[in-house]
Amino acid sequence: MTILYENKWVYIEQEESSIPWLKIFVQQEAKELTDCNPETQQEIFRVLIVLEKAMLDYFQPEKINIASFANYLPKVHWHIMARFKDDSHFPEPMWGEKQRDGDLQLPSMDVFIGRLEALLSGG
Amino acid sequence: MTILYENKWVYIEQEESSIPWLKIFVQQEAKELTDCNPETQQEIFRVLIVLEKAMLDYFQPEKINIASFANYLPKVHWHIMARFKDDSHFPEPMWGEKQRDGDLQLPSMDVFIGRLEALLSGG
Repeated sequence: MTILYENKWVYIEQEESSIPWLKIFVQQEAKELTDCNPETQQEIFRVLIVLEKAMLDYFQPEKINIASFANYLPKVHWHIMARFKDDSHFPEPMWGEKQRDGDLQLPSMDVFIGRLEALLSGG
Repeated sequence: MTILYENKWVYIEQEESSIPWLKIFVQQEAKELTDCNPETQQEIFRVLIVLEKAMLDYFQPEKINIASFANYLPKVHWHIMARFKDDSHFPEPMWGEKQRDGDLQLPSMDVFIGRLEALLSGG
């Protein structure tokens, strides 16, 4: 997968999906959030807040969804998704039952991804 | 629902489930995490960390799962779940397809809940 942004603590990838969906991975080897060092924990929370705000502003979704499972892949990662009333699964989680064929007309995800560095470098 | 713990920023309820599953609600009216004031955001993260560590120690699960959707109920709340290899849905999320009839022999949830005040009051 392409790494879209990274720093000392975390890196970000995109999940292939019909909705805007990013994944935050931690750089250290850790199975659980509490296995991460405090700096990494704080960075996860900081990035979640920045990404949520940016996705709300840019995509104008109905709701932001956040999740961290890692049941298959024992490596801490967080999902952040922009959800829309007419997306494939709403109001179910993206892991729930499909509700319909989604046909979303959204602003460019590539443009959003192009802003990640500026958004997250806090510069 | 019974409130198991609360303070100025958050309160905790139990989800009825065959697995240990708690929900952290925010006291303020907020649809998204970024609608919450910074103190409430920090308290959510603090409580998640404390609960994850306590659930790992007490229930010895295979994995902790964390999620915040609120697609049905537009009020910020976070799920924290202790997952086991032989629970009803593992390795799928609890919102995914059921895998089997779960039959878990776990330490008492009531005893765990009885410790929440001490765990979270930091006293």
